[in-house]
Amino acid sequence: MRTFNFDILETIKKRWSARALSEKEVKREDVYALIEAASFAPSAMNEQPWRFIIGHENETLIKLRESLSSSNQEWANRAPVLICLLSKKTHERNGKENKYHIFDSGTAFGFLSLEATQRGLIAHGMGGFDKDKVREMFKIENEYDIVLMIAVGYYGDKSLLSESNQVRENPGNRKSYKDIIIQE
Amino acid sequence: MRTFNFDILETIKKRWSARALSEKEVKREDVYALIEAASFAPSAMNEQPWRFIIGHENETLIKLRESLSSSNQEWANRAPVLICLLSKKTHERNGKENKYHIFDSGTAFGFLSLEATQRGLIAHGMGGFDKDKVREMFKIENEYDIVLMIAVGYYGDKSLLSESNQVRENPGNRKSYKDIIIQE
Repeated sequence: MRTFNFDILETIKKRWSARALSEKEVKREDVYALIEAASFAPSAMNEQPWRFIIGHENETLIKLRESLSSSNQEWANRAPVLICLLSKKTHERNGKENKYHIFDSGTAFGFLSLEATQRGLIAHGMGGFDKDKVREMFKIENEYDIVLMIAVGYYGDKSLLSESNQVRENPGNRKSYKDIIIQE
Repeated sequence: MRTFNFDILETIKKRWSARALSEKEVKREDVYALIEAASFAPSAMNEQPWRFIIGHENETLIKLRESLSSSNQEWANRAPVLICLLSKKTHERNGKENKYHIFDSGTAFGFLSLEATQRGLIAHGMGGFDKDKVREMFKIENEYDIVLMIAVGYYGDKSLLSESNQVRENPGNRKSYKDIIIQE
């Protein structure tokens, strides 16, 4: 059980990375709303390095599923939406390295995940997928890092998960805020 | 003016990185709530790599102010709270490199920034500060990256900003969601 010491945002309290996604259809409008929510994240020099590949009722979804690790395929291939998050490594105005691009893309994923929660959806991020395969399949240029795969869908039937995934199908605990403040 | 195509979270719509912070006192409880909100971000293997140094009514605040670049000092030194975000580079369970630590710390900053908005506060992230100085002043070990300084406070008086900062004291525009989807 998660416990909270402070009255933090309900959407933050409710969000967790479930695996028991249902195959229930997700509206394209909801998918776009997640992307728009991500787009309003802050970023260094307002660079907005985040980019997205949308797998939803299309060939792209099939390709993205193929890129997942087998342990992720087991549950994430039921998701009706896979979103691949890319991150632009350089600043648009001068072509120089953007040292904050990965950090900023992480911030955008935070916004996306909370927008999903608000819409009754789960957005579960995964590092376990073949990034080289995604780069090749979609001809992604080197100026983009291929960062995260995000399975999106409604909550479904936990009993369809493997036994080991059923055991861990709970909101994860967190260190106390006191334990992550190293100096004050 | 920002425009929205979708009915996204009000907190996301309202958040922006203002500079005209007031010196009005912020309660320590609010500061801790921001940290707790950040702590509920998702992270790879639930590693929770984020750590915080809290400058608030203490010697730490004075030290963190000294680390800011002169252009940030001009406005951010009015903030009653400075939070420095650090990120642990390795996994606790095996000491190996955590490839997602910066991304995950970015996600946590997203949560923190929205919790601030919800509480009527601004949380403005800055890369412009002397990270070596912070490492030295607080004896931060190499296993942590020093990532972001966050000025926190209530909105104040825009006329106290420099002319150039007054001109840009508006919520930043964003690319359309259509322009950041590179494939669907």
